Amino acid sequence: MVFTYQIEIQTNGFCDIHDITSRVNKAIEVSGIGSGLVCVFVNGSTAGITTCEYESGLVQDLKDLFEKIIPRDKPYHHDKAWGDGNGFSHVRSSLLGPGITIPFSEGRLLLGMWQQVILIDFDNRPRKRTVIVQVIGE
Amino acid sequence: MVFTYQIEIQTNGFCDIHDITSRVNKAIEVSGIGSGLVCVFVNGSTAGITTCEYESGLVQDLKDLFEKIIPRDKPYHHDKAWGDGNGFSHVRSSLLGPGITIPFSEGRLLLGMWQQVILIDFDNRPRKRTVIVQVIGE
Amino acid sequence: MVFTYQIEIQTNGFCDIHDITSRVNKAIEVSGIGSGLVCVFVNGSTAGITTCEYESGLVQDLKDLFEKIIPRDKPYHHDKAWGDGNGFSHVRSSLLGPGITIPFSEGRLLLGMWQQVILIDFDNRPRKRTVIVQVIGE
Repeated sequence: MVFTYQIEIQTNGFCDIHDITSRVNKAIEVSGIGSGLVCVFVNGSTAGITTCEYESGLVQDLKDLFEKIIPRDKPYHHDKAWGDGNGFSHVRSSLLGPGITIPFSEGRLLLGMWQQVILIDFDNRPRKRTVIVQVIGE
Repeated sequence: MVFTYQIEIQTNGFCDIHDITSRVNKAIEVSGIGSGLVCVFVNGSTAGITTCEYESGLVQDLKDLFEKIIPRDKPYHHDKAWGDGNGFSHVRSSLLGPGITIPFSEGRLLLGMWQQVILIDFDNRPRKRTVIVQVIGE
Repeated sequence: MVFTYQIEIQTNGFCDIHDITSRVNKAIEVSGIGSGLVCVFVNGSTAGITTCEYESGLVQDLKDLFEKIIPRDKPYHHDKAWGDGNGFSHVRSSLLGPGITIPFSEGRLLLGMWQQVILIDFDNRPRKRTVIVQVIGE
């Protein structure tokens, strides 16, 4: 069985980080599928999905990481192509990856107690994002 | 239903980046499966798979990223083991990851308009790569 | 068909790297499922899963990579929240990702000859880890 669900999120860009765990669990619940895999995927090239313990310190540490390894105020070749100045957003997204696949059982994500699913919007402006939640199982 | 498909690609190594989106969509089409998950996976330890907006500027920006954080001209312990000089290729592959799982519906990948699936060959020589496309769904 | 399996591993923390390939293949064997996808997922926010050629040189190169880009002896905002001093462990886990999805066929992972599935424990103390292996297919 396959069930497709969509989460709509308004973000602020610039490494804006949202905890979407409860909405992914909601997708599983709505699907009626008991156990299987859920793929959480953002259909865009300037955002990413991963997990973390969602607390304000770590949210800042993740922003600091991406600023350190892929800084915003550095020239990117991409910016010559379109002039929209978000080369850093694209590179961050490719490195982190746009999606994650997580096992679930008895209708719940098999996450750790301090582990949340997060969307990071790396773009350089507010965006209305669509996150696809594909539930597959039995 | 499960369908296994293989893509063969000749690469040049050294962070050679290929857009394989149309070939992944082809695998879904051939499978006859309408909706589900597709896992795109390179069976090797010196390449990786992710998504990006495939244009020449970003392709260069991704090469620059990996050269910056995992430089080629630095000594790696791996190079003492085999002497093939591709320690940097292995480390890049482990960080990016060898595969990605993407939802599809109505026979098409649920990607953004400017989002392509790419293979990055990090090895230090041309390679003939096999990318496995596993399609699962209904 | 869906089959849930658990691997228990005692780790030493501090980027301790374990080859879990044979145990993932064991899960597939026990499941009785011939082909499909297997999701290998650590339910915690200070560890990660990827693949590499598992040999001592590369194991050290991966430790060096994480120490370089996300050093242990730097202040992290997370450490102010709980005082457990493992901010670096969390950030490393979010970047690498807690899970990987791999295709299998004829009851075996479709990996390269020199490609193993590894668990990296980034935490700053020994841990008893549970890795969830979710097998789905036919």
